Amino acid sequence: MGMVIRLVAIAVSVLSFGVALWLYTWVKAQPKGSQKVETIGEYIRKGANTFLRREYVILARFAGIIAILILLFIPTPIWKGASDNIIMAVSFLVGTCFSALAGRVGIQVATIANRKAAIAAQTGIKTAFLAGFRGGAVMGMAVVGSSLLGVTLVFMLTKDATALLGFSFGASSLALFAKAGGGIFTKTADISADLVGKVELGIPEDDPRNPAVIADNVGDNVGDVAGMGADLFDSNVASMAAALVMALSLDGGTINGKNVMTVFCYATIGLLSSIIGVGTARMGKRDNPTHALNSSTYVTTGIFAVLTAIATHFLQFEWRIWIAATIGLLVGTIIGIASDYFTNDSKHPVHYVSNASKSGPAFTILSGVSYGFLSVLPAMAGIAVASLAAYLICDPLGPGYAMYGISMSAVGMLSIVGMIISNDAYGPIVDNARGLVEMASLGEEALDITDALDSAGNTVKAVTKGFAIAAAGLTVIALLGAFTTEVNEAAMRMGKGPQFIQGFDIMTPKVFFGLLVGAAIPAVFSAMLMLGVDRNAQRMVSEIHRQFNTIVGLKEGREGVIPEYDKCIDIATVGALKELIPAGLMAIIATLLVGFIGGVQAIGGFLAGNIVSGLLLALFMSNAGGLWDNSKKYIESGKHGGRGSDAHKAAVVGDTVGDPFKDTAGPSINTQITVVSLIASLMSTVFLTVSLF
Amino acid sequence: MGMVIRLVAIAVSVLSFGVALWLYTWVKAQPKGSQKVETIGEYIRKGANTFLRREYVILARFAGIIAILILLFIPTPIWKGASDNIIMAVSFLVGTCFSALAGRVGIQVATIANRKAAIAAQTGIKTAFLAGFRGGAVMGMAVVGSSLLGVTLVFMLTKDATALLGFSFGASSLALFAKAGGGIFTKTADISADLVGKVELGIPEDDPRNPAVIADNVGDNVGDVAGMGADLFDSNVASMAAALVMALSLDGGTINGKNVMTVFCYATIGLLSSIIGVGTARMGKRDNPTHALNSSTYVTTGIFAVLTAIATHFLQFEWRIWIAATIGLLVGTIIGIASDYFTNDSKHPVHYVSNASKSGPAFTILSGVSYGFLSVLPAMAGIAVASLAAYLICDPLGPGYAMYGISMSAVGMLSIVGMIISNDAYGPIVDNARGLVEMASLGEEALDITDALDSAGNTVKAVTKGFAIAAAGLTVIALLGAFTTEVNEAAMRMGKGPQFIQGFDIMTPKVFFGLLVGAAIPAVFSAMLMLGVDRNAQRMVSEIHRQFNTIVGLKEGREGVIPEYDKCIDIATVGALKELIPAGLMAIIATLLVGFIGGVQAIGGFLAGNIVSGLLLALFMSNAGGLWDNSKKYIESGKHGGRGSDAHKAAVVGDTVGDPFKDTAGPSINTQITVVSLIASLMSTVFLTVSLF
Repeated sequence: MGMVIRLVAIAVSVLSFGVALWLYTWVKAQPKGSQKVETIGEYIRKGANTFLRREYVILARFAGIIAILILLFIPTPIWKGASDNIIMAVSFLVGTCFSALAGRVGIQVATIANRKAAIAAQTGIKTAFLAGFRGGAVMGMAVVGSSLLGVTLVFMLTKDATALLGFSFGASSLALFAKAGGGIFTKTADISADLVGKVELGIPEDDPRNPAVIADNVGDNVGDVAGMGADLFDSNVASMAAALVMALSLDGGTINGKNVMTVFCYATIGLLSSIIGVGTARMGKRDNPTHALNSSTYVTTGIFAVLTAIATHFLQFEWRIWIAATIGLLVGTIIGIASDYFTNDSKHPVHYVSNASKSGPAFTILSGVSYGFLSVLPAMAGIAVASLAAYLICDPLGPGYAMYGISMSAVGMLSIVGMIISNDAYGPIVDNARGLVEMASLGEEALDITDALDSAGNTVKAVTKGFAIAAAGLTVIALLGAFTTEVNEAAMRMGKGPQFIQGFDIMTPKVFFGLLVGAAIPAVFSAMLMLGVDRNAQRMVSEIHRQFNTIVGLKEGREGVIPEYDKCIDIATVGALKELIPAGLMAIIATLLVGFIGGVQAIGGFLAGNIVSGLLLALFMSNAGGLWDNSKKYIESGKHGGRGSDAHKAAVVGDTVGDPFKDTAGPSINTQITVVSLIASLMSTVFLTVSLF
Repeated sequence: MGMVIRLVAIAVSVLSFGVALWLYTWVKAQPKGSQKVETIGEYIRKGANTFLRREYVILARFAGIIAILILLFIPTPIWKGASDNIIMAVSFLVGTCFSALAGRVGIQVATIANRKAAIAAQTGIKTAFLAGFRGGAVMGMAVVGSSLLGVTLVFMLTKDATALLGFSFGASSLALFAKAGGGIFTKTADISADLVGKVELGIPEDDPRNPAVIADNVGDNVGDVAGMGADLFDSNVASMAAALVMALSLDGGTINGKNVMTVFCYATIGLLSSIIGVGTARMGKRDNPTHALNSSTYVTTGIFAVLTAIATHFLQFEWRIWIAATIGLLVGTIIGIASDYFTNDSKHPVHYVSNASKSGPAFTILSGVSYGFLSVLPAMAGIAVASLAAYLICDPLGPGYAMYGISMSAVGMLSIVGMIISNDAYGPIVDNARGLVEMASLGEEALDITDALDSAGNTVKAVTKGFAIAAAGLTVIALLGAFTTEVNEAAMRMGKGPQFIQGFDIMTPKVFFGLLVGAAIPAVFSAMLMLGVDRNAQRMVSEIHRQFNTIVGLKEGREGVIPEYDKCIDIATVGALKELIPAGLMAIIATLLVGFIGGVQAIGGFLAGNIVSGLLLALFMSNAGGLWDNSKKYIESGKHGGRGSDAHKAAVVGDTVGDPFKDTAGPSINTQITVVSLIASLMSTVFLTVSLF
């Protein structure tokens, strides 16, 4: 039966690739546009590909070094037996390749779909919406399909859950750098373009005279499409890996046990539900794009709940596990709705911040920071309640089931991730489409349509971001469980007896030491990324000034005068590649340091501190950023004096601060906490052997 | 012997009151100034007293309600025996009175010392410095003397450490509201005065035409003098209480045991060292005020280390405990120095932020947030290392000694608190003096001198704030130990057996639930305070506009036209009193909720989460705020275009954001975490009896 389920998982993965291919073909078959659209579109495509290629070259070297270190030391030093180490290193490399591939596919289709959506916007909103959504859905299908396929294959070939952690670590470490690098790139370009274009010169967003405008559009792709895809690929794989580590342990190591089957079954149904959800997404007659995106998400959620219930009944899985998974899904949705409250322009926080902007930028910042801080409560309380509920419900099943229940809650929450990615990737595609319409002068009507599509993208993005953070949070709690399992299994092998570690007692100063240091890391990590953006944006602003000052006729928009777009792309690329390594490396080194100083106990505390403060800061920064963005848009819609008013100027300051908050630092923290959790699990034997105290 | 030490403690407390009285008389005996100085000085004094009186009326009612609740339910419901409850309620009320009294004394002398320093500045810097410093020292002596006296008396009368927690809770809950209320008052006035005066009208700081200028000076007193005094009173009492709870438990309940003696002995020596330090503080011939402040702090530190070593030798205390206390002191100093690095205008962060301001306010904010985030690492790692080291050193003394060692580390860190408060209260006094010099037109030379004194106040403030946060952090870790002791003693009384609770395992979902919710509270608490400032400042800005628009001749500065200062003071007062209750109440209710839902296990996690995220946010906000303040001053000193340049405008935005960060939310979090920790200890029996899961 276990084998059948895994074969079904592979079949559904392949089906999702088929759907992705079909969507890709559909997008590609949409009508071509004018010469100008194609030219600018090519600029964007080339810029994105160049960045990705150069990033992957650097990351390939980095992955190579890590793979060698894994080969030498993980799970045990190679002189104590090489086979496990080889499996681990290979799993790691496969993880990085899958993650990179998913990002690459996403960029490929996104840089075509943006043109198609722009062209379609000339004739009507429905096809334009579909071009954007289906372009995003290719990414969604590719990411979820490859994560399910990868996990299933690695598990079938190695029959070892620890190898899955290696696979997951490969995916995460690539995601860490892809998200950081893409995040720095996109915000460097965005901030610089806005600062000189909108603020100094008062020219519109996406004005083709602006030398940074193409870099800005490239950034949407490499940051939001490729980076976000890598992020959710990573969470998805990690949640499955954590669940399988504990399931396998509960099943006594047999790969066909009931719990292992449950994990594969639910994950497969999640992907299937997403495929159906993507298939049903379209705009009805009197529909708006936000509604279309949300309703297909709810369809996916409903289908998942029903299908897993049916599977649970017929395959005689535990109903308690089903409840845990459903709670995860429910809480994910609630957290998304809470994020929406704090960032939606029809709700109180946006109105308050917009109104405060009338008193100047300091009040924009203060009120935004305040609401950002408030916004962490519902999400953190939600995750707290979800994990407590999953525990209480699954605990009666026996020892070890409580933590497994939490991991299944994460799997449940991530079951609709295919749909979430589709919605999320839709955003940058239609944002790009809007840029193309403006740059290629496709007319006011098309601009209105792409504006409507873009606005829906922003609204949905707040929900998906809250969801992504919550999913990462629940996943790392599950990884904490996986870490304990790993430590105990390593201790068992080392003859330290069973149940070597019961847990991590806060009152043990080693744990408390880890807790404090772990909590500081996300703050330092965010600071390093934001300073990277800051430094890079300053370089780019100088370059834009140089072009406006030296290229004759550029500022005036003389016919035929084109800025040197590639110079700006180059600055963003070089800067992002330079800044992306240190922050990630710092997080990794801090983990190793704490582990070598305080051993597994300190690491337990470190992970808990890291999760707690990581969630806090990620939620704060994402929601405050979204809030500022929408406050600016709210004022631009004519409120409080509209564009050009003092309130607008203040709101632009808020938006500029919010940009690296929400698109660089905030979402990167997700990946940071996952990477750190996985390193801890993989290094458990090493930390058990070597530590100062 | 124990009795002797306690009598010495009382004697030294009385000595400190004598010193305070002598300093007060000295300050009062300084020459009187012109009519104008006295008039304006009276405005400030009356405003501060009015606010304090109205605040205390509200807080008295609040304290009354809490006292009744304590009487009814703590430590056990009153129908199970009333005597403990009466002791607890009385201790609580005595704690609130002592705290209020210390604040009152501080205000009394500060509002005289500011005038004296202003007058003295006309003749030279040395006397002006002494007037400021000795004014602050009155507060320092009063706070530390009354905390030692209070703790000793309560302990002698009740012979019960739990009653000390009640006393400490009284001090803390008053501090919570005093800090929040004062913080909202001061920043409401400061921001509004700057926004209309400096930014809109371009008139200097402390210009007498500005209707909010007196309120601003009142705010310095009620926020920085009274609020900060209450805060450190609270930390000081809490650190002694936590240490005594554990010492008494280690000594088997005998009040003359060695550990109890050590606590009283070290605390007494700390006060004695501070008295000597205060006595030696003066400016040498070629001295500057910063150096004078710092060197007397180092003198205090050295004396404490030497005297405690001598006492340890002769009284045969444990040397390991001495080392733990010394480590605390050392780490406190290091954290102060780290805070200084991030906020000092001769260091890299201030230069970076000032330079970034040239690109606009968004970059001021982004770079300040980034360095603020970075600044949490040294402090959190320092506390982590201090607690780990104290543990490792004291653990060999026997079970329970490790946590006691950490509490003695906190006592060691707080031993120099008398000196710290003196330095800290010096700041607002000379800031006020500068205002008086400007408002009463005492001449350029006097302005230069008070500027130099004020600048030293700001530099030292960064150090003392870092110190205060670190002390609170270490104290609450000790309180976590006290909480465990209390729970186990309560469990013992309830017949649940000894060592009912070993600790709090993060892997237990109840603990994790508490951890997540506890971590969210400081963010919500800060948000509520900052929104309070925001709302209140908006009201005050309207009032200032009204005055400038309706009072004829005010804007032009026509002779004899005086703004309605009292209207602004009234708005700040009413607003602060309205906003101060909800945030504090939220923190208290959240603690009760978590306790009633998840019992003592959830509370253990809740406290840990609260400490970790509280430290993180308090350090971030205090340091970022100080950084922005000094960046603005750095630009005002003529860098990057000086006053009026674009960089200056951007830096002012940073400073305005930083004001409630560093003077309202950041330091209030200290008190919030202490209050929550004390409630947890006091409610331990109740939570053991009644909880949902």
